[in-house]
Amino acid sequence: MLVLASPPGGGKTTISREIAKRDPETVISVSATTRKQRPGEVEGQHYYFVSKEKFEEMIKSGDMLEHALVYNNYFYGTPRKPVEKALTEGRDVLFDIDWQGNRSLAKVAPNDVVSVFLLPPSWDELAHRLHNRAQDSEEEIARRLTKARDEIAHYREFQYVIVNRDFEASVAAVRSILEAERQKRDRLVGIQSFVDTLKPGN
Amino acid sequence: MLVLASPPGGGKTTISREIAKRDPETVISVSATTRKQRPGEVEGQHYYFVSKEKFEEMIKSGDMLEHALVYNNYFYGTPRKPVEKALTEGRDVLFDIDWQGNRSLAKVAPNDVVSVFLLPPSWDELAHRLHNRAQDSEEEIARRLTKARDEIAHYREFQYVIVNRDFEASVAAVRSILEAERQKRDRLVGIQSFVDTLKPGN
Repeated sequence: MLVLASPPGGGKTTISREIAKRDPETVISVSATTRKQRPGEVEGQHYYFVSKEKFEEMIKSGDMLEHALVYNNYFYGTPRKPVEKALTEGRDVLFDIDWQGNRSLAKVAPNDVVSVFLLPPSWDELAHRLHNRAQDSEEEIARRLTKARDEIAHYREFQYVIVNRDFEASVAAVRSILEAERQKRDRLVGIQSFVDTLKPGN
Repeated sequence: MLVLASPPGGGKTTISREIAKRDPETVISVSATTRKQRPGEVEGQHYYFVSKEKFEEMIKSGDMLEHALVYNNYFYGTPRKPVEKALTEGRDVLFDIDWQGNRSLAKVAPNDVVSVFLLPPSWDELAHRLHNRAQDSEEEIARRLTKARDEIAHYREFQYVIVNRDFEASVAAVRSILEAERQKRDRLVGIQSFVDTLKPGN
């Protein structure tokens, strides 16, 4: 499980999608949320849009791997089943979530979560990107800038940090992290049985 | 500091040279040894060949970062100065050493050493590679096979493990590990000062 976090406008979504596109061994976890669907967002691809009641039901029945209340207003959470299915198939799961989600996931599976934080190259650049999202109101932009400061304040909770200056370089860096983590001794399933075969006659 | 270890014939030397060749930010640490120079070996490139007296002098004066007695016969060690110079210049240092060297280095600099163990794809393949080194006597080959079993028995002491089935794939895996480790939050010099600049007006 690889968490890719960043402030809003920091690149976590575009970068995680690019990686899932290039690497067939990875799949993106689609979060569930109670917030309203925005123009252009596709149900089941960007989010699962559910009612507050449905969300609370999923929490109760254990169907949420982790969840959090964001902006004190909306629930965001990770449905458990698709993640477990992908991991069982030997695939890596990318989580495009925030620091709260990362903290919850790390609690649920401390040894299986790798976390990466993408920092913007400068504050101006970040503000510029948020302003350029035409769909958002001034109020929404202001709220996101506040969220951005809050998110950046938590970068120390992440194992890896990338300054997202260049899209291709950042994608390459995240892919290297994925490749490297796959070679961690602890993660190599069956390695001891393999080593046991390394003796004369094999 | 990245340690690349393997049984003799396991590929640590060719792979670390290939990486140093492709990546100008890395440099190979040249070990000192008291064993005899073999045909084709170049002083200062493959090893620094020194007398037992000189080696012991270097240990006493603190000029060895780590050292070990191998085969109960010869000293192998890492001269301190070239390593410190490269690290000061911001370069990564590759160590093509064995489990004893890795253990000593990890003791000297526990947070700065990343260790990778290369396993052969099979015992037969390893024996085959050792037999094909025409320069070695049967006695030497037998000794290396013994050393190989001893080395493999220590693979659990390494953070990353790669089964060296394919040269290019193994080089790519080690490079990914280098790239990833460079993005570890702890290793990013000055990251906190950079994050401090991420606020309105910058």
